[in-house]
Amino acid sequence: MTSFDLTAYLAGRRVQVDEALARALPEIGSDDPGRLKEGMQYAVLQGGKRMRPMITIAACEAAGGQIAAALPGSCALEMIHAYSLVHDDLPAMDNDLERRGRPTVHVAFGHPQAILVGDALLTRAFEVLGRGAPGVSGDRIAAAMTHLARHAGIHGMVGGQALDIALGQDIHALDLLEQVHALKTGALYAAGGAIGGLCGGGDEAQVRDLESWGLKFGIAFQHADDILDDDQKALRAQALARVDQLVGECDALAAPFGARAEPLRALAKWVRDRAHAAAAGVKAD
Amino acid sequence: MTSFDLTAYLAGRRVQVDEALARALPEIGSDDPGRLKEGMQYAVLQGGKRMRPMITIAACEAAGGQIAAALPGSCALEMIHAYSLVHDDLPAMDNDLERRGRPTVHVAFGHPQAILVGDALLTRAFEVLGRGAPGVSGDRIAAAMTHLARHAGIHGMVGGQALDIALGQDIHALDLLEQVHALKTGALYAAGGAIGGLCGGGDEAQVRDLESWGLKFGIAFQHADDILDDDQKALRAQALARVDQLVGECDALAAPFGARAEPLRALAKWVRDRAHAAAAGVKAD
Repeated sequence: MTSFDLTAYLAGRRVQVDEALARALPEIGSDDPGRLKEGMQYAVLQGGKRMRPMITIAACEAAGGQIAAALPGSCALEMIHAYSLVHDDLPAMDNDLERRGRPTVHVAFGHPQAILVGDALLTRAFEVLGRGAPGVSGDRIAAAMTHLARHAGIHGMVGGQALDIALGQDIHALDLLEQVHALKTGALYAAGGAIGGLCGGGDEAQVRDLESWGLKFGIAFQHADDILDDDQKALRAQALARVDQLVGECDALAAPFGARAEPLRALAKWVRDRAHAAAAGVKAD
Repeated sequence: MTSFDLTAYLAGRRVQVDEALARALPEIGSDDPGRLKEGMQYAVLQGGKRMRPMITIAACEAAGGQIAAALPGSCALEMIHAYSLVHDDLPAMDNDLERRGRPTVHVAFGHPQAILVGDALLTRAFEVLGRGAPGVSGDRIAAAMTHLARHAGIHGMVGGQALDIALGQDIHALDLLEQVHALKTGALYAAGGAIGGLCGGGDEAQVRDLESWGLKFGIAFQHADDILDDDQKALRAQALARVDQLVGECDALAAPFGARAEPLRALAKWVRDRAHAAAAGVKAD
């Protein structure tokens, strides 16, 4: 039994992440040709659970670091997540007109502007992380940026998008579905674990373990989301068993970090509970 | 009078840049969903003058560094340049169907694929630079990545794209035209100067001067291109005078670097000669 209050933990850190994000985005000021800066704010500051920043912070704390050290990486990951949504929503991609009850960026700001807003957010992510974090060496910042690029790029998130498009509706096996989840979703969570570990002062093995933790968490999170959204109905029982397995692996990876990994453990438990509640037809938070 | 052979200098370095680029792109191997890796190669390895890498290398040499130290930054800049062309060519942007006599990426690989190829190249640029360069500290790599992001993003190249779209055909004054050139073109050259200076071991003031050199060179280069392409005919005499002025400022910035800045001087002279030949109606090389 744990008395750890995950809701309070997330709420507290979320305030800090949202403040850091507002500071990390370019100020609109008097000069905003094409309303690009406004579009960047619109894309990032529209809410969402900020799960990638939360994982980054929790990994940083597990490695023994302070929240402040994880904030630039957290902002960078959220910007990359936001850019990917802006580009995914484009007419040539998913052609989505609404997201979280509001017009998507290309609807609200125009199609060329949405392409550029995505490009600007992706680029800004590296600028924000590159400026450094309190008490984190240049070597660690450069390594964190490289992790970010690797997991966001062709061997990570973008590669997952490509795979998803190439497969189309043709995913009927859990292992293929999981391959897409690992790239499209897991990669950014893996980056969060690695960046948090690096900025928190973790050694090489710890950074690698936190990266694995992030990858497994991200896949489990996506399976839980599928179950919740009634996607992949045929694979539901298999997916649920897989969530249990992945969460178990997460817990094994977190164990050596001791009490400092309490937030990671609580997050993994939350995903497992969410998946089970969804499978049972109960709407979890 | 200088006996410096710019043609031989560029040809020699170009071989090294092309080899480094081929190594820096993801291998296609057996697995290339959506042909994204093929699209990345298609976009980058289709020729071009490799001017941004040349500036990066020349700046690195001016600061006292070896070519090898400048190659990761050179590749990163060329990838960013290539991504910007892929996204600029998209139907929602310039809707260009051909580039250098070949179908553009969205024509050859598909529209969603072209968006992702651009995203993947932009991301890969940071991965390649982040992996480091021989003899260059992590601090300098992190600083170089930050320069890259700043000049490529909303306050640099992407901001220039936005300004260009916002202004449309409405550019009738040289200072406004130059503002667009500074952002759209100059910023990446400025990044080349700064990254070359950083990776070549330059001190803070030298890096700043090489960054300024790059910005001025980039603007002059774009003016020369306009004159060559018969664009902005009404502004031609003014633009030519401005090229002379910018090249003079470049030479003043290069002077303290002494003989090691011979390539920078030759490059600036080449741009001036090109602009004058174009204005006189003679096709320069």
